[in-house]
Amino acid sequence: MKIGIVAPGGPIAPEVEEKLSALVAALPAAHRPEIWFHPQCVASSGHFAGDDATRAAAFLDVANDPEFGAVWFARGGYGSFRIVEAVLPALTDAARDKLYLGYSDVGALNAALYRAGIGRVAHGPMPSDINRDDGEAAVRRALAFLTDGDASARAPVAVPGAPTAAFNITILAHLIGTPALPDLSGHVLMLEEVSERMYRIDRALGQITSVPEIRRAAGIMLGRCAPIPGNDPEFGCTEEEVARYWCERAGIPYLGRADIGHDAANKVVPFGAW
Amino acid sequence: MKIGIVAPGGPIAPEVEEKLSALVAALPAAHRPEIWFHPQCVASSGHFAGDDATRAAAFLDVANDPEFGAVWFARGGYGSFRIVEAVLPALTDAARDKLYLGYSDVGALNAALYRAGIGRVAHGPMPSDINRDDGEAAVRRALAFLTDGDASARAPVAVPGAPTAAFNITILAHLIGTPALPDLSGHVLMLEEVSERMYRIDRALGQITSVPEIRRAAGIMLGRCAPIPGNDPEFGCTEEEVARYWCERAGIPYLGRADIGHDAANKVVPFGAW
Repeated sequence: MKIGIVAPGGPIAPEVEEKLSALVAALPAAHRPEIWFHPQCVASSGHFAGDDATRAAAFLDVANDPEFGAVWFARGGYGSFRIVEAVLPALTDAARDKLYLGYSDVGALNAALYRAGIGRVAHGPMPSDINRDDGEAAVRRALAFLTDGDASARAPVAVPGAPTAAFNITILAHLIGTPALPDLSGHVLMLEEVSERMYRIDRALGQITSVPEIRRAAGIMLGRCAPIPGNDPEFGCTEEEVARYWCERAGIPYLGRADIGHDAANKVVPFGAW
Repeated sequence: MKIGIVAPGGPIAPEVEEKLSALVAALPAAHRPEIWFHPQCVASSGHFAGDDATRAAAFLDVANDPEFGAVWFARGGYGSFRIVEAVLPALTDAARDKLYLGYSDVGALNAALYRAGIGRVAHGPMPSDINRDDGEAAVRRALAFLTDGDASARAPVAVPGAPTAAFNITILAHLIGTPALPDLSGHVLMLEEVSERMYRIDRALGQITSVPEIRRAAGIMLGRCAPIPGNDPEFGCTEEEVARYWCERAGIPYLGRADIGHDAANKVVPFGAW
């Protein structure tokens, strides 16, 4: 398995490549993929890992190269949505026979690829997670999924056999009304959040649960929402109470907690029926 | 003119009633409205000015009372969207013959009322603005609009005669996909922001300019976006460059700056053709 790494949003710290390469080199040969960091991963243009054209070209370099079995998104940040419109029509058949893995801001590309039926998309750890406390565990989990399809890397699903999808709450809210949003009818939808105040989680979930196709989801599972900066005044309920409130209003089954989040324990969630 | 004041999101500071009452009492008799603060304005339930049922009931108390010529939203905060579904079907004919004025979070109610064709809606200063530096000017402007329809209170429009609408950028983004979003085709759409980092302004404008009905707007005017917390790293362009970028991508005319914002200079923007 050859894995190509690109950064559609923000750039990675230069040491990520070194750390990840050392970790991969130490894997047993039978489970050791070949990894390649596109030089664009450390490019810089204001907020982004290179300007829109650079990031789009880097993504296409890897996605359209039949040598690669997987596109692994290096990091979130912000910027994926800006390149969706440019890259989608430029993907070739080589892009269809591939895995795509990432989360957070990368949800915009996950969504658009899944909606277009291109490749097999999954929400899960990224190379930049290696810099977290215990981050090697996250990266090993992602590699086991990409290389061996390791089922233990995956987050448990409350409705066995149901198609799944996973997103950061804020990212999903900002995809609504755009051509990137897939139809999530019938899906178990797992949602996580990081560094958003509770009123913002509430506001985004109110929007998400208003979408007709999401009202037809098999249910919502709530991943970790952490850290949550203080609300002034205290919001008055927990993130799970907020999720239950909006699910109840929308008639969407609330299916409990999901084992995903912006942390080292973040499990993999394949999109669709896997 | 009798003006009823309610708080569909967060509560007001208790001194707002006192300050506003003193200001109104000092107006010349011919321009002096009668104002009434619903006691709900200072209610408290966690984040909100009373729970959803309390806020919805207070809004209906004023909107459905034919004695009042205007509903003036006391403050933004967060919470309007939560009561839209409950209040809209409960509005009576008395609610139709009324002005509604507010901005920020109240945009959710402005949107829903405008979409439903109920009353005459405007984006503009609220009683809580009296606590800003030079806030009395904002409140006087709103009162002149509500009481006398003062044209000088209104923000200039780049396309004379075009219907108008105005929103906080983040609030409008979170209305997309919900039943509250009105059709803004043909409108001059004025957008402002407060306390959001540049990448978030970019992200929200990317979503807003993706909506087909907004792509058919007469154009977008950008209000003040201030303060903008620092972006790490520097985002790389200004809010006007961001607005131009997304307008160009979407084929929406960018019509320059609008005289609105979370500040004392905030002008009034009526919704629709006035």
